[in-house]
Amino acid sequence: MPDVKHQKWWGWGYDGVPDFQYANKPGFAPFVRARIGLDLATAPVVRPPALSELTVPASRASAADLDALAAVVGAEHVRTDDETRVVHWAGRSVRDLIRTRAGDFTRVTDVVVYPGSEDECRRLLALAAERDLVVIPFGGGTSISGSLHAEDDETRVVVTVDLGRLNRVLSVDEHSGLARVQAGILGPDLEADLGARGLTMGHVPDSFTYSTLGGWVATRSSGMQSDKYGDIADIVKGLRLVRPSGVVVLRDLPSTSTGPSLREMIIGSEGRLGIITEVTIQVHRLPERREVIAYMFPTWDAGLLALHEVARSEAHPVFTRLSDADETAFSLSTLKAPTTPLKKAKAFGQERLWDVLRLRGWDTDAMCISYCCFEGTKRHNDREKDLVKSIVARHGGITLGSGPGALYDQKKFDTPYIRDFLLDRRTVGDVSETAAPWSKLAEVHRRTKAAAQRAFAALGRTGFVMCHLSHSYHSGACLYFTFAFVLDDARDDLEQYDTVKRAVQQEFMDAGATLSHHHGVGTEHRPWMAEDVSPEGVALLAGLFEAADPEHRLNPDKVLRTRPTPEGSATTG
Amino acid sequence: MPDVKHQKWWGWGYDGVPDFQYANKPGFAPFVRARIGLDLATAPVVRPPALSELTVPASRASAADLDALAAVVGAEHVRTDDETRVVHWAGRSVRDLIRTRAGDFTRVTDVVVYPGSEDECRRLLALAAERDLVVIPFGGGTSISGSLHAEDDETRVVVTVDLGRLNRVLSVDEHSGLARVQAGILGPDLEADLGARGLTMGHVPDSFTYSTLGGWVATRSSGMQSDKYGDIADIVKGLRLVRPSGVVVLRDLPSTSTGPSLREMIIGSEGRLGIITEVTIQVHRLPERREVIAYMFPTWDAGLLALHEVARSEAHPVFTRLSDADETAFSLSTLKAPTTPLKKAKAFGQERLWDVLRLRGWDTDAMCISYCCFEGTKRHNDREKDLVKSIVARHGGITLGSGPGALYDQKKFDTPYIRDFLLDRRTVGDVSETAAPWSKLAEVHRRTKAAAQRAFAALGRTGFVMCHLSHSYHSGACLYFTFAFVLDDARDDLEQYDTVKRAVQQEFMDAGATLSHHHGVGTEHRPWMAEDVSPEGVALLAGLFEAADPEHRLNPDKVLRTRPTPEGSATTG
Repeated sequence: MPDVKHQKWWGWGYDGVPDFQYANKPGFAPFVRARIGLDLATAPVVRPPALSELTVPASRASAADLDALAAVVGAEHVRTDDETRVVHWAGRSVRDLIRTRAGDFTRVTDVVVYPGSEDECRRLLALAAERDLVVIPFGGGTSISGSLHAEDDETRVVVTVDLGRLNRVLSVDEHSGLARVQAGILGPDLEADLGARGLTMGHVPDSFTYSTLGGWVATRSSGMQSDKYGDIADIVKGLRLVRPSGVVVLRDLPSTSTGPSLREMIIGSEGRLGIITEVTIQVHRLPERREVIAYMFPTWDAGLLALHEVARSEAHPVFTRLSDADETAFSLSTLKAPTTPLKKAKAFGQERLWDVLRLRGWDTDAMCISYCCFEGTKRHNDREKDLVKSIVARHGGITLGSGPGALYDQKKFDTPYIRDFLLDRRTVGDVSETAAPWSKLAEVHRRTKAAAQRAFAALGRTGFVMCHLSHSYHSGACLYFTFAFVLDDARDDLEQYDTVKRAVQQEFMDAGATLSHHHGVGTEHRPWMAEDVSPEGVALLAGLFEAADPEHRLNPDKVLRTRPTPEGSATTG
Repeated sequence: MPDVKHQKWWGWGYDGVPDFQYANKPGFAPFVRARIGLDLATAPVVRPPALSELTVPASRASAADLDALAAVVGAEHVRTDDETRVVHWAGRSVRDLIRTRAGDFTRVTDVVVYPGSEDECRRLLALAAERDLVVIPFGGGTSISGSLHAEDDETRVVVTVDLGRLNRVLSVDEHSGLARVQAGILGPDLEADLGARGLTMGHVPDSFTYSTLGGWVATRSSGMQSDKYGDIADIVKGLRLVRPSGVVVLRDLPSTSTGPSLREMIIGSEGRLGIITEVTIQVHRLPERREVIAYMFPTWDAGLLALHEVARSEAHPVFTRLSDADETAFSLSTLKAPTTPLKKAKAFGQERLWDVLRLRGWDTDAMCISYCCFEGTKRHNDREKDLVKSIVARHGGITLGSGPGALYDQKKFDTPYIRDFLLDRRTVGDVSETAAPWSKLAEVHRRTKAAAQRAFAALGRTGFVMCHLSHSYHSGACLYFTFAFVLDDARDDLEQYDTVKRAVQQEFMDAGATLSHHHGVGTEHRPWMAEDVSPEGVALLAGLFEAADPEHRLNPDKVLRTRPTPEGSATTG
């Protein structure tokens, strides 16, 4: 059995990690009852079925296929059991979760292999060419864009290549701030290794706990600290990509002008150009101190203007984040009940603060919470905090201090678990994120929320949608939407989910925002590619994929569908 | 006659701009005599010939070709006269300059057209497909990598498309800091327009005066202020690329995760994917103040360590630059003789300063001058200057102040002119630049200088090579080498030049540095592409080019040679 940890087959995280808890959060049950009509006290809880209750299609791999694969990676690293195949059959999008719970496994991967070296990856691709196998590279399986499953009409044998054994930090050039790392390493393992050397990559996506370096690169990931540390494209300085015909080796370089960027072609390629086996990342010294400060703004518009001003000020926070009024209300609803006299006093103080703000004329239902993070020396942080504080004040906001900030830092990886909790209660909770120039953000926010509400109405459901701004750039920022509604038992689950998801993504397009700031394309965002990068852009990209993989064996159908359909050929959709 | 300014046909800059002057620089003549054995007092001056003395090959465009082109852009925007064709036949590399002066015009472009709109560009590409024409997009013509000429074996009719009429700022979104600009605009015109709005792009390559936005994008340019404003790839937020089959439209976005980056495929594509007609750039408010401070270090190694520390300090200079001892000596040799009592006093003070440093134990022949630029509020700049000053002191350097810095700012665009001055005296002066991780820079510097000296020795010449560090990144920096030697009349000029250039570029490869940090590939750096991005990387790139332009009509042979040679097919070299 390969020594590779996997998430549980039906949801987010490892088996044994406790589910989302709400009993100690007195505001939560009233909030979801009020906003989406879900009564947690009475709603039946439908837990996922046991795997044995579901019918998992048999592997289509022949004995000869399996022998040939075993000859490359060793028999113990070739798995065809149902659980391993179901763990790897897809990512963890809400679509994937709904289909998995329903046993809607039209095209489960046929075999999972765990190569132990780059050379084994190379030989796997040679074998795929020889035996006409489809190859899907797999990191932590956290994709929420549909980048990891074979399409239902795939007739060839599908081999998922789990990179989990390629999980070592190979070498660190501390002087240059560069680390050569194998692609299959998980976020926590990478940071533990770097941290022991006094270093950090600083890349912290929501999926951090379960996702891998190779996955971050393949899907063009961005972490919540990107304002300081950069998106993954800023962090990657070199890499190795195994292809059927050889290995693309991009050396460790701070910058280069050698033609179209191969590095930027491989980043975001989602397995369509080959298997990323090794990445050189930029690493930083651990900061002397780190502080997350919370602020409150009277309105979304005031907060938006303030964070924009911060983005072009002489301060450089590690991240800046602004929740809209709905997300602020949601956050407050998840506060734990105070259990000690000190916490009770603080909670009491907070209520009095809201009273004071109301006396000042605030509508506390419209107020928006914000966080900025600062890293560096005390002198540096104090200066930056002063700068931000004065900008916040200029826009009518107040500084809450470091208490709520510390809370934010502790809870930052918790959100994805709530999706499984909600699905247990026949409720969809999901996210869609985008990016746009500063001048469009207010409109993208307003229009997307309205579009989601129209979709809820069309389904006859009471839905909820909230949003935060994060990932600030000089010219714009990311808007991250979360939506939820209780499924109607009388309709198809996926159809209901798609109705809302489609409305949100389409509104991004219509409002001049992008398809996804950092979740990639996969299959779920594919229908909008031509709108996002123009039909001629799709043609250019399709040309690259066709030239690199004319037989469509490398994670086909992701980003674009270039493989001919049974009825003819298609380039997208 | 189209209202588009051009450089003179035989060299750098507009006609009438005075040549490089040395009479008022008393240190210059002794310096070149000592370093390369060129005696300016006695060396014969060989001015470029008159164009009428040279044989310019006749245009191969047929009357039908010209009529068809005129039908698209108007007859007044189709030019076949010798001077226009020679101005556009190549860029301004030393190879180009030597060949132009010698009338070595094997394959001068056949016709130059000046489209007035994107639609005309689109129709020109349609016409090229219809009539089997080769299309070379042309900005300011400042390429020094051989990106603008047709290869000697090109048998088809070559059309150079000069973008000079597409030179307007179309719109500015001041709130987002984004400007939509036509690709043919020249640096000074762009900055004048933005400056009138209180804005700047901040992109200042050495070629700034004569180069265009589209050229910067097509060749993956970087300006001397990239530490703050970014390389061109950081600055471009959207663009339009005209292709024979349509227009790739990349909308204005701060960031996106939609697959392999089309933006980064088009940046650096050197015309091989189509014609860039419009670019949305990131713009900044003009800084409240700007200061360039000079420093002196006792040695190159001390300066290198100091600038590395600055790059990861809490200061963020606009640029940092460090000249090695040879470049420092060259800089001091180009100081003008003091003409006023104040200047004389300063010059005297400087000599006394060197005396003091020698008393402190410095070898003033080894000392290295450095510049850092700061922009922002007084408070911000003062803080940053303090930080840098203390880092400089920690590494044994001294702060010279703002006097030499102001001089640097005034002279920053002067270097390219010196190449023509030297060629008039049968002397080659040229540049090669690279980038590498911090831990390799000392070795790349040492090895490259040694390689150049070996090449000079092989030619039996006394050569000079100097270097500066510029463009600092977290993980590395650019090293920019300048070399010079007097040509041997008994040997072929190009062969001598190539011997040195080849030695320098090969050493970059062997020392783990890149082919070019910001001069692009063109034809002159093409032979090393497989060493820089690996043979498999070249294959991936060739696949993109072949898919995008199977008939090799779009600036063929640049970056890679994918067009079949008369003897067979080749992918590089």
